[in-house]
This record gives sequence, C-alpha cells and structure tokens, in this order.
Amino acid sequence: MSVKAKAIYTFLSENKEEISIQENEELVIFDENSVDGWFQGENSRGERGLFPASYVEIIRTRSNSNVTDCSISPAGSLGNDSSYFPSTPSTPLHLQPSYYDDDDDDWDDWDDRSTVVDDADPVRSPGANGHAQQSPLSNNPNVHYRAKSVSGQDSISSSRKGSMVGRNLNRFSSFVRSGVEAFVLGDVPMMAKIAESYSIEMVPHGPQWKESPQPFACSIEDPTKQTKFKGIKTYISYRVTPSHTGRPVYRRYKHFDWLYNRLLHKFTVISVPHLPEKQATGRFEEDFIEKRKRRLILWMNHMTSHPVLSQYEGFEHFLMCADDKQWKLGKRRAEKDEMVGAHFMLTLQIPNEHQDLQDVEERIDNFKVFAKKMDDSVLQLTNVASELVRKHLGGFRKEFQRLGNSFQSISQAFMLDPPNRSDTLNNAISHTGRTYENIGEMFAEQPKYDLFHMLDKLSLYQGLLANFPDIIHLQKGAFAKVKESQRMSDEGKMDQDEADGIRKRCRTVGFALQAEVSHFHQRREVDFKDMMQAYLKEQIAFYQRVVQQLERTLRMYDCL
Amino acid sequence: MSVKAKAIYTFLSENKEEISIQENEELVIFDENSVDGWFQGENSRGERGLFPASYVEIIRTRSNSNVTDCSISPAGSLGNDSSYFPSTPSTPLHLQPSYYDDDDDDWDDWDDRSTVVDDADPVRSPGANGHAQQSPLSNNPNVHYRAKSVSGQDSISSSRKGSMVGRNLNRFSSFVRSGVEAFVLGDVPMMAKIAESYSIEMVPHGPQWKESPQPFACSIEDPTKQTKFKGIKTYISYRVTPSHTGRPVYRRYKHFDWLYNRLLHKFTVISVPHLPEKQATGRFEEDFIEKRKRRLILWMNHMTSHPVLSQYEGFEHFLMCADDKQWKLGKRRAEKDEMVGAHFMLTLQIPNEHQDLQDVEERIDNFKVFAKKMDDSVLQLTNVASELVRKHLGGFRKEFQRLGNSFQSISQAFMLDPPNRSDTLNNAISHTGRTYENIGEMFAEQPKYDLFHMLDKLSLYQGLLANFPDIIHLQKGAFAKVKESQRMSDEGKMDQDEADGIRKRCRTVGFALQAEVSHFHQRREVDFKDMMQAYLKEQIAFYQRVVQQLERTLRMYDCL
Repeated sequence: MSVKAKAIYTFLSENKEEISIQENEELVIFDENSVDGWFQGENSRGERGLFPASYVEIIRTRSNSNVTDCSISPAGSLGNDSSYFPSTPSTPLHLQPSYYDDDDDDWDDWDDRSTVVDDADPVRSPGANGHAQQSPLSNNPNVHYRAKSVSGQDSISSSRKGSMVGRNLNRFSSFVRSGVEAFVLGDVPMMAKIAESYSIEMVPHGPQWKESPQPFACSIEDPTKQTKFKGIKTYISYRVTPSHTGRPVYRRYKHFDWLYNRLLHKFTVISVPHLPEKQATGRFEEDFIEKRKRRLILWMNHMTSHPVLSQYEGFEHFLMCADDKQWKLGKRRAEKDEMVGAHFMLTLQIPNEHQDLQDVEERIDNFKVFAKKMDDSVLQLTNVASELVRKHLGGFRKEFQRLGNSFQSISQAFMLDPPNRSDTLNNAISHTGRTYENIGEMFAEQPKYDLFHMLDKLSLYQGLLANFPDIIHLQKGAFAKVKESQRMSDEGKMDQDEADGIRKRCRTVGFALQAEVSHFHQRREVDFKDMMQAYLKEQIAFYQRVVQQLERTLRMYDCL
Repeated sequence: MSVKAKAIYTFLSENKEEISIQENEELVIFDENSVDGWFQGENSRGERGLFPASYVEIIRTRSNSNVTDCSISPAGSLGNDSSYFPSTPSTPLHLQPSYYDDDDDDWDDWDDRSTVVDDADPVRSPGANGHAQQSPLSNNPNVHYRAKSVSGQDSISSSRKGSMVGRNLNRFSSFVRSGVEAFVLGDVPMMAKIAESYSIEMVPHGPQWKESPQPFACSIEDPTKQTKFKGIKTYISYRVTPSHTGRPVYRRYKHFDWLYNRLLHKFTVISVPHLPEKQATGRFEEDFIEKRKRRLILWMNHMTSHPVLSQYEGFEHFLMCADDKQWKLGKRRAEKDEMVGAHFMLTLQIPNEHQDLQDVEERIDNFKVFAKKMDDSVLQLTNVASELVRKHLGGFRKEFQRLGNSFQSISQAFMLDPPNRSDTLNNAISHTGRTYENIGEMFAEQPKYDLFHMLDKLSLYQGLLANFPDIIHLQKGAFAKVKESQRMSDEGKMDQDEADGIRKRCRTVGFALQAEVSHFHQRREVDFKDMMQAYLKEQIAFYQRVVQQLERTLRMYDCL
C-alpha cells in the first residue's frame, strides 16, 4: 500500500536503481516496509526507485494512523505496489524478498536497516544511533529482543569508521550500565548450572586466557553477488569454511553483523573489533568487495585466534549451521543466552595466585598509556598510508606517465627527418617511454599488493584499540568499589565478608582484563611482524620489477 | 665623484650587499663607472650598497654634462667615494677593481653590464636589448667596436632563457640585415686574401662540414670563487684545459660571453647554442655554480665537436691565451675580424656536386617540421623533468619520510608497555622507519645524478633549436632571390650571368645550411643516446639501492 512521506535529509542517487531526494521533498512510498533499509518509491519529479528509509519520514494520515514508522521494522503490512512490480513474483521461494515472509525473525532482512548510515558523506549521515533512538520501535511483540538490545548496540558496527569517529561511546558509557558494577557488588545471582566456562591461567608475565582445547582457523572466500527484489537489490554471499569441519557455510555481511552484536552483548571485558565498514553506494564495486573480504578475513582470524571468542556457542552456530530451520533455532538460542554482560563474568575461572591490586592497577595504567599512544600512531600510519595510496594512484602514476609521454614525443620528433633518423635509437627511446608509462601503472597497481594489506590490519587494530578505554574504565570502576568497600568495612559500615567478596570479584575483573591485554599483545606482535615483513617483501619485489624493466630497456641502447 | 641619478625601474635587494631602489627614486651614485654592471650608491632612505646600473639614469647637471650615461661604459671618471671605501686601496694590482684601469678594453668589467637583466623576475627585466638601444653610447672613440656590434647582439645571451622566452628575434630578424641577401646578390666584394677556409663535403646522405684536421676536447673544471671590490663583489673563475695543449687557462663567465658574442657575430648560418643563463642573485650558491659548470661543459663539448666553430681563431685565442697583454691583442684582433656575417659566407668551400634547388628546399622544409616538433618535445620533456625534480625534492621525499616517521611512531608506542614488549620487533620497526626516511632523502638526492644531467642536455638543445627558425629564414630568402632573378632573366630584365651568380651563391647558402643540419643530427643522435643511457643507468642504480636498503631492513625481522 502506497503511503506519503517527506524527505528529512537530502540523498543523492549514486546507482542507477536509486533516486535522489531533496530535504522536505514529498515522496510516495510504494511499500512502507523497508527492505535492507531502502524504500521503493517515487519522488516529486516522478522518478521511481530506491532511497534510504532512514532519510524519510512517513506522513501519517487518519487512514493509516495505526502504522508506526516502519523504517526499522521489516515485519508488517505486506502491501506491494503492483505498478512497480507488475507481475506476481515467480522467483523461487528461497530467493524471494523477505517481505513475503511473515516471520520477523527472518534471516534476510531484519537487521539491515542501517545500510546507509555508515556512509562517510556527511550529507548522508543522520547517525545510526540517533536514528534508532528517534524511531519508535514496532509494537510487534516478536521484536522484543531487538528492543532490548537496540539502544546503541545493534548498530554499533555501522557507526564505527575507525578509532576517531567510531569509538563506541555507548557500549560502556558507564560502569553501572555494563553490569560490571552489579557483578562486583555481588548483585548478580550465581546461576544454578553454568555450562560455559573460560579459564584464566597464570604464566610468568601474568594472567592469560587458557588456550582453546580445539583451536581452528576459518577461511572466507568467493564473495558472490546474489540478487533479490527481482534484481533491484543485490547482496554478497561469502563462503565461510572452518578448518575443523571443512564444511562451508554461506554468510552475508549482516550475518556477520548479527554475530558481532551478539559478541558485543555478551563479552563485557573482551575487545571485539568492529566489522569492516559497510558502504551505502557502489556496494558491488569490485574493489570494495575485495576490500571487505580481506577485512572480514582479518576479523575472522582475530576471532578464531581468541581463546574465549572462538569457543562461543553463537560463533560455533555461525560457523557450522547450514540448515535454515536449525539456523533460526540456534539464533534464538543465542539471543536468549543469559550469560551475557555481567553474567558473563560468572563464567570465568581465575587462578589462585595472589596479585596485589595496586600492581594490577599500575599494569593497567601502563597499558592505558600504551594503548593511547598505539591508537595515535596507528591512526597516523593509517593516514599516511592512505595518502600514499592516493599518491600512488595519482601523483606517482602521473609523473611517470608524463615522463613516458615526453620520451615518446621525443622519439616521434626524431622520426620526422627520414634521411637523418636512426630507427634503433628511436625505437629505444620510444620503448623507454612505454617503460615509464608502465612504471606509472605499476605504481598505481602497487597499493593492492602492499598498502592495502597494511591498511586492513591497521583498521583491525583501530577497532581493537577503540574498545580499550571503555574496558579499562570498567576495571577502574571495580577498583574504586574495592577501595570504597574497604573503607566502609574499616569504618564498620560494612561486613568484612562483604568487602572481601567485592575484592574477590574485583580480582576476576582484573584477571580478565590482564588476560585480554596479554592476548592483545601476543596478537599485536605476530600481526605487526607479519604486516611489516609482508610490506617490505612486496616493496622489494616492486622495486626489483622496476629495475628489471629499466634494465631491459637499457639493453635496447647497447646495439647503437 | 658622486653623481645624482634616478631609478628607472624598481629593484628589490636580495643579497646583503645590495640595496632596493624604487622607480623614480632619487639616488646618489658614488662612482658613475659601474663595476660588473653594478653601481655603488645610496638610496633616498640612506641605505648604501649596490644596485644594477641598468636600472638607473644618471641625472646630468651643467657640472658633468660632458659625461654621457655610463651604465654601459666602464671607462671614464676615476672618481671614488672615500666614505664608502674609506681607505686607499691596498689590494694587489691584479685584484684591483677595474675602475682604476684607464683602458676601456679592460678584460674584467667591460661586458658585465647586463648582469641582472636575465633574471626571470619580471620586476627586474627591463630587457637587455631595450636598454642597450635606449642608452646613448659613450663617445669615447675606443669603444667603437662595441658600438658596431651592440645593436641587439652583445647581450643576446642574457635575454635567452630557453627556446620559449629566449628566441633570438633580432639576430636574423631580416634576411637583409644578416648580410646574406647582400652576399647572395653579389654585393659582398671578394677579399684580396682570405686566410680562413671551411670546407663542405658531399657524403651519401648529403653535404656535411669537413672534419677539423686537428680535433680536440676541452675540460672545464674547478670553479673557484674570486673576490674583487674588497670582497663586496665576487665572481667565479673556471679552469679551462684544451686537450691538444694540456695547458689550463682561467676564464670567467663573461669571457665565455665575449666568445659567444663573437661567434654569433661571425657565423651566420651556424647554430651557436646560448650560454647557460646567468643568475642575478644567489650567484654563488653551490648548486648554481655546479649547474653552470655542467652546462658550460656541454656548451664547450658542442664547440669542440663542431668542425667550423672549433677552428675559429677567436676560440683558439680563448682556449690558449694565458698572457694578459697577448690576450688584449688577440681580443682586438678577433673584434676587428672582417670575415663576419655576410663575409663569412666567402670562406666556405662547397663541393662541385649538383643539387637540385627544389630538393634542397624540400629537405630544409622537412628539417623545419622536424625542428619544430623536436623543439616542442624538448620543451615538454624539460617541463616534465623539472616538475619531476620538484616532486623528488618535495612530494616524494615527504611521502617516504612521513611513512618512516609513522613506523618510528609505532615502534615508540610498542616500547611503552615493558613487560609485553619485544625489543627485536621494535628495533626492526624503528629501523624500517629510518630506512624509509632515508629513502625519502635518496629521492631528494637523486635528481643530481639523473634529471639534472638530462635537463642540462635539453637546455643545450633548446639553445641549438632556437636558432634554426632564423637560419632557415635566411635560406628561404636566398631561394626567393634565385627565383626572382631567374624570372627577371627570363623576362630579359637581368643578365643570365648575374642570375647564375645569384644561383651559385645561393647554392653556398644551401650547402652550408645542409651541412649544419647534418652536424646537428649527428650530434643529436650521440647526445640523446648518451642522455638516455645515462638516465637509465642512474635510475637502475637508484632503484637497486632502494632494494638493497629494504632487503637489509627485511633481514632484521628474520630473527623474530
């Protein structure tokens, strides 16, 4: 059923299936249920196509006043404008757009509503969280799990664009909110039966996560374009193959996003790196697909390398479930998991070794200083490397190509006075021209082999580092509670038992944070060594190729 | 004796010994005899120092009305302002400023009056020729040889800045003016005795200059700073050593300039490349001295390679004379040489072979098209190479240094969390940083080894090519005369004998031009082959050094 709407932001179409809309422009929406965060409709100039749901406001009239803003609610009216989709869909069921599916738990569409809000273009960024907060949630009771988790968490991946702009300000905006305070204060009841258990062990340099008993790796390959909406909207499916099963499953970006949000929700003191960013337009441009694949691989490597994250049941489900029905069951199970946030702390087994809390605090302070400096320098290197990419594609290429052109031009001049020309010299000069044109192209191609990979890894680390200020904040809060409770106990205002309980639980928080820091350092060392080696190897190979090209060219002058 | 003067152009001081003067500003000149083209004086703000003589006009009062504008006349009053030079000079005679020398033929200063006019700054360029024409010549009878040659010729080198701005529009501005018309028309009387003789011989691909019986080379080395004027003005002396004598002589730039002007004056149909440009300020900056030396060497190589120019008596004098008295004699002899311009044509011995004039004209037309295209492409390559130098010194260096800095910054961050740090990795990353900083420096240094030499050679060729349009114009004029005279003869308006004479002399012009074209092509082939080979070799060496640096750096990661 068509409804009227008004554009609240200007949106400029960048793909042929999209249409541009102006702020305050009146629009007609053919189906008020957004798909992948997009509405289909018509603008005031009569153009028909897609535009982002979050950029418009549906105008409520009496006749449809019972429908709330559905830009974040895919379930609801099944209305469809038949003039836009003239024929009854004959698409096979498994490829049919999800708005034919009454299940709000639908795997295809429920969480893609923020597709556009992570675009870097300021015109396009009303803000994921802002939007989620402005929009009244659907009153459909089936979506309650989203209502619980939506306040700034479900869309975190979308609002992160690196450590500067993407710092997760909401996740641990307070010690209280995270549940860690409740845990430390003993307000989180022990569960009767806790199936999960993650151990921290003590090694010479401090606490660390106990290795997973069944370590594995996971490949991500073969991003394949799939279409839906009769080809109007497309998406990419990745083949995901865990090494311990060897059986591939196929996942979309939003499945990763679902997993990511589960992880954020559950693992209080663990730094879960954000996913590679989405891209609103030109999503299927080859370079972008390639880049997202590379970054998903790095993200996945971090996941499988992490002793805690790699053992998470929801992750296992993501990696192994190939059956649609089973998928939904496992997904619901993961979403109903109670051992999240504060409760997750109950699953931790800590060593018996005594650690002076003062020492722990000092270690954490050191790490804090380190993390800040590393975050700054990773950002600096990211900026420099990005600029270098730009130079490779622009300035460097241009300079060498111009040099090549000029040599060509010299050789063309030399061919103009036939009785006095030396074809051998002219050919050599012309070849030199082509060589430099080619070297220009090599410069433009080179970032694919080195700088892109460096930027991928730096992006992962930006994501990891962005979480630490909040995680450290938790630990600080817990330590403050210990001091407070000790003072109260000293003043006789609190049982010593209770104060001891707080101290004991605070130890858990400290151990967990130290284990996470230790894991971070281990990975950092491996990752940066690999990154630097790979970069240098590619750089050497590059300059060697340049030398070879020039040597071959120089030989053309020998026979003169 | 001090005289009053008025600034006719604004001059901005750029060195500490200079003072700025404003157009129309009243000035006091301490000694109206300029030295090296500079006056010493005081401006209206009481500042004392040097400013270019050609920028001011001396204000004549009754008391010194017998003195003409001396800005181009170094001989004259010996007056000296003792407040500026407080003590009687105790400088040894051979270093004393020339204004103590009554001889207008003085070797040190007479022709440096155009020191500043070749500066690219438009504020500073009233134009050498313009100035020479505006200034009334000294009425000193000793300077008559300059009066003869001054109209646009003596200062040509100064006004040339490359083929675009420096085309010699005056030298052959008309067929008539060059004297070639007179020669073709038989108006140049045969001399009783012609000592000089240059032969043109016929080889399969056409006429060419007969090789010099005594070919030689000449080195230019060891530019040494000399001072005069009690150290206020300095100049550079070069050691010039011809291979056939092995005995060095010492020459200043202005000696080269004198020689250059003699060559222009004498060799009508030969392309004499301009000298490397002067530089008004910062003349003694090391890079500039080095650049001028390199370009003087190339200029000299062209001179010694040229069968006609290398045999010129004035050149021999320039290369061999080491005695002051002999120098002056030889200089005067060269200046009194009558076999210049049109008369030079009389010294040419041409082969007996018949050449169809139509064919010759066609060849010349081909060459004209070639020369235009070559001039364009040499200019293009010059611009591209100059920009590439700028990029090497700026953008390239900056990018690599920034990358190096960022690696250093990463390594500094990694040193901040001591229990978790790997010194080996940190050292390797820090070393990588230094390597890239170093590579940045290598990029900045590299033009010295390759692009500078390319630009030097291109500049020589810009100079050579700039002369051809005028030289070709001479030949065109001669051919027109042949056609005209033949028509007149056919119409009975001219004796056939006279028409035959014109045709014969036109053959000489054609042979000479073809010989010069042939020589140009021979040199071009050698020079451009050398240029390209040298460039490629240095480029290979450069990228190999980069590879070596990177390989050494990569090995630091091996022990991790």
